[in-house]
Amino acid sequence: MCDFCVINSVKQRMLSRREFFKATAVGASVAAATALPGAMPAMAQTPTTISDMTHELHPTFPTFGGGQQFELNRIFDFAKDGYNLFEMRVNEHTGTHLDAPLHFSADGQSVAEIPVENLVAPLCIVDIRTKAADNPDAQVTPDDLKAWISNHGDLPPGACVAMNSGWAAHVDSDKFRNADAEGVMHFPGFHVEATKMLMEEADVVGIAVDSLSLDHGISKDFAVHYDWLPSNRWGLECIANLDALPATGATLIVGAPKNRGGTGGPSRVMAMV
Amino acid sequence: MCDFCVINSVKQRMLSRREFFKATAVGASVAAATALPGAMPAMAQTPTTISDMTHELHPTFPTFGGGQQFELNRIFDFAKDGYNLFEMRVNEHTGTHLDAPLHFSADGQSVAEIPVENLVAPLCIVDIRTKAADNPDAQVTPDDLKAWISNHGDLPPGACVAMNSGWAAHVDSDKFRNADAEGVMHFPGFHVEATKMLMEEADVVGIAVDSLSLDHGISKDFAVHYDWLPSNRWGLECIANLDALPATGATLIVGAPKNRGGTGGPSRVMAMV
Repeated sequence: MCDFCVINSVKQRMLSRREFFKATAVGASVAAATALPGAMPAMAQTPTTISDMTHELHPTFPTFGGGQQFELNRIFDFAKDGYNLFEMRVNEHTGTHLDAPLHFSADGQSVAEIPVENLVAPLCIVDIRTKAADNPDAQVTPDDLKAWISNHGDLPPGACVAMNSGWAAHVDSDKFRNADAEGVMHFPGFHVEATKMLMEEADVVGIAVDSLSLDHGISKDFAVHYDWLPSNRWGLECIANLDALPATGATLIVGAPKNRGGTGGPSRVMAMV
Repeated sequence: MCDFCVINSVKQRMLSRREFFKATAVGASVAAATALPGAMPAMAQTPTTISDMTHELHPTFPTFGGGQQFELNRIFDFAKDGYNLFEMRVNEHTGTHLDAPLHFSADGQSVAEIPVENLVAPLCIVDIRTKAADNPDAQVTPDDLKAWISNHGDLPPGACVAMNSGWAAHVDSDKFRNADAEGVMHFPGFHVEATKMLMEEADVVGIAVDSLSLDHGISKDFAVHYDWLPSNRWGLECIANLDALPATGATLIVGAPKNRGGTGGPSRVMAMV
């Protein structure tokens, strides 16, 4: 980059954060400091839209098993004690949460052992909303991945591939679990042949689904969990807000807990575009 | 920026993530998609160093009250059940964690109500390691803030101001709580006159400390908590890894839990430079 361009670029980036600050449906634009290759990284600021990809967690948030998996128990009360404080009891696999490799392996990475750079990933969104609306047992297949690549190019190295099945819209209703009379759930997930393709033909660190499980609801064998997680790749379940993002170009940030020996946990997930 | 520069810049940014991937003491460089003003935001990728600012959480992590505040209880075991899963029990104010405004107010923002854009903030680090080494009751004072501004310029809008007292190095020893014979703790924190200055003269969304409390350990009145948090600004306690970052130029990302009605919680905190 020529000197004039560097100066001009840095000037643009140093405009007040307020000037970039524009509320959007899913977040707001802020200035995030980023490194410009070869150009004053400490001073560079670019406007970035932050999207919250996390559902609010509460006691009746739908769960895979159907029971309550989260509660806040009050320990101190502002009116009586001068401050508020709760103790949280939560099953690791509740709400918008990460599955660490250790969840489905004897000795895979715990949630604290996942390298932090693997928790920041280019986000590639595979849209199966149309077929999932027709068939709640729909899956992301190798053909869906091939169509994505045909439209958007190769998956970027270190990516997260996310399924947008439209299921996030059902999070406040029984449709999210969508259990039939026999208690069998019907919601979309990945097909194991698709995750095999991702392992063999791409460099993907994680997959994400907007439903309750990486495997679709009717799965009896957890095929995706058993194939994907032991390879020291992660999975993210109940991700929110995919509708608001482009198929490619966003960066996912997974604020997973750093619990020693944990198999995952509720995570604050954001995306930057 | 001239057309040639745009093309050149985009080319540089599209180099494989692997080429940027360099492990550092505190993280690794990855390509994070960011918006270039006026230049193909969806394709732009810049090398960014991700630092993990989070201590690992475990049952004997030091706590303000001194008792155990975190445990993982095994529910399923891979050898017996085919998968691993724990239930977590944790006091919200444990480990590297956020204090939401509601922690010290009757009706301030809960942790789920903090706008997501306030969880991504330019990070300004005030280094008081020398005086804290001499005096564990040291505080960040208005003079420390004035010295920072004199050296580095005005605090950027929407910033987080962090105290680096060197206390993170003590996290695995009794020195972290540093209780005397009477049980009074001695560790550094903010002085309330400093946080008043931040509220009156700057646009700061949060403060962070590498010790157990926003107030220094000998405080009996929680002056900073009572002054700062009810203004709908947040606090971050037990932040890790500040030594590795520049005084200005990094962006802090606070992966706080999104628990309905919560007063804070263990958070995955990262920084991008």
